[in-house]
Amino acid sequence: MPDSRFYRRAGPFRLTEIAARVSATLASPGPADLTISDIAPLAQAGAGDIVYVADVAYAQALSAGHCGACIVKAAWVDFAPKGAAVLVAADPRVAFAAVAAMFYPDVHAAPPAASPPQIATDAYVASTAVIGAGAVVGARSRVEDGAVIGPGVVIGTDCRISAHVSVSHALIGNGAIVYPGVRIGQDGFGYVPSPKGPLKVPQVGRVVIGDRVEIGANSTVDRGALEDTVIGNDTKIDNLVQIAHNVEIGRNCLIAAQVGISGSCRIGDGVIIGGQAGLADHVTVGKGAQIAAKTGIMRPVAPGEAVMGYPAKPIKQFWREIASVSRLTRRDK
Amino acid sequence: MPDSRFYRRAGPFRLTEIAARVSATLASPGPADLTISDIAPLAQAGAGDIVYVADVAYAQALSAGHCGACIVKAAWVDFAPKGAAVLVAADPRVAFAAVAAMFYPDVHAAPPAASPPQIATDAYVASTAVIGAGAVVGARSRVEDGAVIGPGVVIGTDCRISAHVSVSHALIGNGAIVYPGVRIGQDGFGYVPSPKGPLKVPQVGRVVIGDRVEIGANSTVDRGALEDTVIGNDTKIDNLVQIAHNVEIGRNCLIAAQVGISGSCRIGDGVIIGGQAGLADHVTVGKGAQIAAKTGIMRPVAPGEAVMGYPAKPIKQFWREIASVSRLTRRDK
Amino acid sequence: MPDSRFYRRAGPFRLTEIAARVSATLASPGPADLTISDIAPLAQAGAGDIVYVADVAYAQALSAGHCGACIVKAAWVDFAPKGAAVLVAADPRVAFAAVAAMFYPDVHAAPPAASPPQIATDAYVASTAVIGAGAVVGARSRVEDGAVIGPGVVIGTDCRISAHVSVSHALIGNGAIVYPGVRIGQDGFGYVPSPKGPLKVPQVGRVVIGDRVEIGANSTVDRGALEDTVIGNDTKIDNLVQIAHNVEIGRNCLIAAQVGISGSCRIGDGVIIGGQAGLADHVTVGKGAQIAAKTGIMRPVAPGEAVMGYPAKPIKQFWREIASVSRLTRRDK
Repeated sequence: MPDSRFYRRAGPFRLTEIAARVSATLASPGPADLTISDIAPLAQAGAGDIVYVADVAYAQALSAGHCGACIVKAAWVDFAPKGAAVLVAADPRVAFAAVAAMFYPDVHAAPPAASPPQIATDAYVASTAVIGAGAVVGARSRVEDGAVIGPGVVIGTDCRISAHVSVSHALIGNGAIVYPGVRIGQDGFGYVPSPKGPLKVPQVGRVVIGDRVEIGANSTVDRGALEDTVIGNDTKIDNLVQIAHNVEIGRNCLIAAQVGISGSCRIGDGVIIGGQAGLADHVTVGKGAQIAAKTGIMRPVAPGEAVMGYPAKPIKQFWREIASVSRLTRRDK
Repeated sequence: MPDSRFYRRAGPFRLTEIAARVSATLASPGPADLTISDIAPLAQAGAGDIVYVADVAYAQALSAGHCGACIVKAAWVDFAPKGAAVLVAADPRVAFAAVAAMFYPDVHAAPPAASPPQIATDAYVASTAVIGAGAVVGARSRVEDGAVIGPGVVIGTDCRISAHVSVSHALIGNGAIVYPGVRIGQDGFGYVPSPKGPLKVPQVGRVVIGDRVEIGANSTVDRGALEDTVIGNDTKIDNLVQIAHNVEIGRNCLIAAQVGISGSCRIGDGVIIGGQAGLADHVTVGKGAQIAAKTGIMRPVAPGEAVMGYPAKPIKQFWREIASVSRLTRRDK
Repeated sequence: MPDSRFYRRAGPFRLTEIAARVSATLASPGPADLTISDIAPLAQAGAGDIVYVADVAYAQALSAGHCGACIVKAAWVDFAPKGAAVLVAADPRVAFAAVAAMFYPDVHAAPPAASPPQIATDAYVASTAVIGAGAVVGARSRVEDGAVIGPGVVIGTDCRISAHVSVSHALIGNGAIVYPGVRIGQDGFGYVPSPKGPLKVPQVGRVVIGDRVEIGANSTVDRGALEDTVIGNDTKIDNLVQIAHNVEIGRNCLIAAQVGISGSCRIGDGVIIGGQAGLADHVTVGKGAQIAAKTGIMRPVAPGEAVMGYPAKPIKQFWREIASVSRLTRRDK
């Protein structure tokens, strides 16, 4: 259920038509002429929505969920929730990408509502800034020279959107500071390997930014694929940081310059990440964890843990290993 | 003594009022009704200025210095210079951040002088560029499409400020080339941990860039907190480099792409830094040192030294350790 | 033979004049009054062009090549192709940089042809975008708010050039997506060490981008020095990636965020590069190779090889070494 402020939906489509278009097989037909009205993430799906499961790890969640239809591998058919129609595909991600493209054939087209922007009377918008249709700029907020705010974007009160920032497909809370050159809301690096080469997955999520968040110069925050990219209240992000699609960052985090956070990472409250650290995709970092500069995270980090190195390890172990290698080398001479 | 071209100062304030507002205790009253007119770094402070010491390592400098008042921890009271009033605070950085916010309540407000910009008759300014009040563009300099030059900024002669650059709170020498998308002068990542979460420290310094400096596309240079961020003559900086607040870089340095230099680093003349290297804050790198690509610097680097690795070590030792680990692994098989 | 759409050439010059201006010695005079009309890379040079050899490894290619004149070290005189005039210089790179500056004294000046841009009738160009003289925007392409397209740039059909992008000295194929804040075509980090400090080498190449290429937000692609920077069809590049001058990337590559590729690297088709990996200059990566995140590449990578670490090694060896060090450290306790 992508946000209609940002995306124009096609359809509805009959399930039989969807199956034919995406080369999937109807394993369980459901109602004779089931009609699907939208795509959705499983957690938010309703009776008219189609969802997918890409990994057996999520299949159990599927069985406890609710949806109109689901796309699965043949081996996972039994995990489908009761009453849902089931489409079987060799690669559910590839099939779902095709379904998403049916419902959202041009994610770059502006949404239909061509209402004028709503700019608070005491907000400041530079004459060289551009504010899209239906966008909202809250009280006392500043949109500085050359900034480009896309259609439907919501900016809260007391924000500063600096020069040359671009924002699309995003909701920004109150008191946020977005430094010059930041890029928020572009579609992320979403490709599924397919027999014909990388297949682009339509990205129909949003960026949701909390209150008093700060994002440093020339950082980039991609919007979610289907769910949202989220940055919690009071989190501060330095310059040239990359935040990929579907990342969720908690409150009160400090993220230093040139950090890279890959897709779908979950970062708890109060986490501190040193400069140039990198996180592989789908990694979870617990509340209050500390990640040293230049660290490479490939596995979950427990709450309160302090890690360093590549691959990351507890910080004391890192320094012990450094000492061991140094001793070894002196013996080798 | 922040530059009045860029910052509008409030005050003066009585010391007793300052003490009350920032929850500090007056250890030594000084003149009965001492009035403080500004904040300053210790090296530049005069009789009307208030300074602070955050680390016992700097306390000795304090005793040899000069100021109207100083903020210290209780244990450091005796380091205060003769005749200065002394404020005692549990965390002098937190207290000073509050004092800075008294004198500079809105660092983002334009300074009072609304004089028109001064643009040399043979300078070129694109029609889509924006030049702030009181800014100076020197002879034969070019300000290209969409560039935004803030109030009071000084650009020397024969400079090229490329498309989409933003510059604020900065003085740029002659013959400098600033490539597209560079961000100069935004306030840095200045937070002090406090019981209420990260506390933002007003950043009231500048960026001072020498002659013939080049700064590569989409690089970021934050302005100083209280002192200046400085880049020396003839230094060349590649793309996507981060230079944090208060960094001082010497002359004739070469800094490759995606390097990150943390706050308050001091880099000597002729230093060469390879791509994606990172420097922790407050590190000193001696004249002529060479830092290999991807190196992580956490300790001082001596003049002329060549280092590599994370943590950085002499380059020969780095390669010996690589060989030792490789041999060890073959034995382990 | 730099592209006349982008560069305005001076000259021709007599070889004797060139020799005098760049402090080179005429080892073999050639025709009494030889006139040189341009600089060129060896592979493209004709009878009127001057070339250079900077490394003995390329001297053999020289002997099999064709040119009007060549600049070499004294020891390499015999490698000059038959009939070519030979200039001897202590440092051929420094001498050639000076020759390049004779022919292209101001690489930043717009080329002479002041023809209007050609914008397809069904292309969209935002009112705040800037399109240079002689530039071409193909059918159905979009140039969004604030984008700056330089003189002579060619953009194919069905492209999206997002907000705040700057493009110069570049040819872009069909169906390309360039995300917000990308910098394409600025001159690269081209300095030759000389007795007087770093000497800037005029960069007179181009950027040539294939069909359906995508380049992520705030990434930077420098133009070639003499030859071109090339990105092959269907290659996808994530955010904040640095691509230096003369890099050649094949087709169907996936390059994750914050990767840095140094000058003159050659990357084969189908290569996958993980986030924050870095490649030293002049490295070759074979077709289908996979480079893990954060890896540092200093040597060639064979086709199909999977490497990880710094320095890079086969991925299995990387993990064996990690395990060996961990065991060693446990024994040391």
